[in-house]
Amino acid sequence: MPRSTPELRVLPLRLREEVAPGDSLPELLQRAAKQSRQTFRAGDILVVKHKIVSKAEGRWVELEKVKPTAASRAWASRYGLDARVVEVALAESRRIVRRTRGVLITETRHGFICANSGVDVSNVNGGKHALLLPKDPDATAAKIHRALKKRLGVHIPVILADSFGRPWREGLTEAAIGVAGMKPLQDHRGLRDPHGYRLNASVDAVADSLACAAGLVCGKLERTPACIVRGFRYEAAPGSARPLLRPAQNDLFR
Amino acid sequence: MPRSTPELRVLPLRLREEVAPGDSLPELLQRAAKQSRQTFRAGDILVVKHKIVSKAEGRWVELEKVKPTAASRAWASRYGLDARVVEVALAESRRIVRRTRGVLITETRHGFICANSGVDVSNVNGGKHALLLPKDPDATAAKIHRALKKRLGVHIPVILADSFGRPWREGLTEAAIGVAGMKPLQDHRGLRDPHGYRLNASVDAVADSLACAAGLVCGKLERTPACIVRGFRYEAAPGSARPLLRPAQNDLFR
Repeated sequence: MPRSTPELRVLPLRLREEVAPGDSLPELLQRAAKQSRQTFRAGDILVVKHKIVSKAEGRWVELEKVKPTAASRAWASRYGLDARVVEVALAESRRIVRRTRGVLITETRHGFICANSGVDVSNVNGGKHALLLPKDPDATAAKIHRALKKRLGVHIPVILADSFGRPWREGLTEAAIGVAGMKPLQDHRGLRDPHGYRLNASVDAVADSLACAAGLVCGKLERTPACIVRGFRYEAAPGSARPLLRPAQNDLFR
Repeated sequence: MPRSTPELRVLPLRLREEVAPGDSLPELLQRAAKQSRQTFRAGDILVVKHKIVSKAEGRWVELEKVKPTAASRAWASRYGLDARVVEVALAESRRIVRRTRGVLITETRHGFICANSGVDVSNVNGGKHALLLPKDPDATAAKIHRALKKRLGVHIPVILADSFGRPWREGLTEAAIGVAGMKPLQDHRGLRDPHGYRLNASVDAVADSLACAAGLVCGKLERTPACIVRGFRYEAAPGSARPLLRPAQNDLFR
C-alpha cells in the first residue's frame, strides 16, 4: 500500500553529441549523465525520448526515395501535406483509425494509436529524412535497463517516451512506448480510501505520468533527450508498455 | 524561445484536516504549505486536486435522496452499478458520448469529456455522497491565484486537476480542469529545431503534463491534495482550461 510520497525530482540529462546509427544508447546515456553531473541512484527512473533511440537504431527513411501512391499524393496535396511522409506513415501502420481533414490517425505495428504512425520529420536533419518509431521499444528499454544494471549495479527502470495527441483535448502530452524494470500501471482497486470506501476505478497509468513529468524537462528545442525521475515509488517488475494499450474489444473509440 | 530547462521539483503539500463546505481554499492551501514546511516562491506553480475544491464548495449530492429513472436502474443493474450514481452523472452531463457495456462517457457542462461526468464516490465519506466536479474550475483557480497574490505578493499559477481515463490507453492520468496565471498550452509552431527544421505540430499541453507530474506525488490514498511544482518555465497569462478542450468541429472522436 502506497505511503505518503516524498518530493519528486526530474533531473535533465543533456547530451552534447548528435546521436548516430549504431551508437550505444547505454553509453550515450551514461555520458549524458556525466555531462549533466548526475549519477544514477537506487530508486531512480530513467525516461528517454524515443528520438535518440530511433536515431541510434537507424530508424529513418530517406524521403527522396519514397514514391507515394496516387491516393497519398491526392490526399496530401488537398491538405498541404508532404505525400512522402503520408506514405511512410501508412507503411508503418497496421490499421487506419481516422483519415479526415488532413489528420491521419493510425494504429502502428506495435499497437500505439497516434498521428502519422509516430513518423516525425522535426529534430532529425532538416527535413530530408523521416524518423520512425523504434522497432521494439520494450526490447530497447529492457536492453538499456540491463546494461545500466550491469555497468552500475543498480536497478533503474527505463521508460521510452513519445509525444502523442489525444482525442477531445488539444496539445501533446507524453506517452510511454517502452517500459522495463517497473509496472506501467499501478492498481489501487480493492484498497480503501481514508474513509474506508473501496476504490473502484483507480488504476493509474504511472508510466505515462512519469513520461509527462519528464516531458516538462526534456524540451522540444533543447538537447535534453533524457531525464532521471527521482523519488517515485515504482513497483519493480520486468515491465512492458503493452499493458498500457487497451485491448480493442474494451475500447469504445476505434 | 525556451532555453534549456533546469531541474523540476514536485513538492507535496499535506493537509491534516478534512475539508468542509465553506472552507477557504487559499487558507487551507497556505496551511498545507506550512504543515509541509514549504513556502511559495516566484516561479512556483500550485496544482490542486479537484476533490478538496469540490468539498470546500459543497458540491455533493446525498445518494439517499437521488431517485434514478427506470432507464438508469435497468442499465445500472445490468452492469452491477449504483443507479443513483449513474443518475447523478447523467444530470451533470450535457451530452452522452458513449454508453456501452457499463461505461458511461459524457461531456460535462464545462465541456470535459470523461467517465461519469467526473462524479466520484471514493474519498468522500464512505460512499454516502457523490462528489461533483467544481462548478466553475477556472473561476476557482483564479480565486486561489488572486488570493495567494494578495497574501504573499507572489504570482503563483494555479491548476486544478482531476484523474481522467483516455481512449486507447489503460489507466488514469491527470487532466487540468481549471487554470489561472499561465498558458495551458505552449505553442512551438514556427520555431526551428536545432537542425533549422520548422516545428509543425508542436503544441504542448503543459497544464496537463504539470497535472500528471503532480499526480505522481498527490497519491490517491494519501492526504496530499496539492503540490508545488518548482522549476518549470511557464508563460504567464490570465489562464483558463478552455484552450485545452478541442472544439467539437475539429474532433474526430465524438
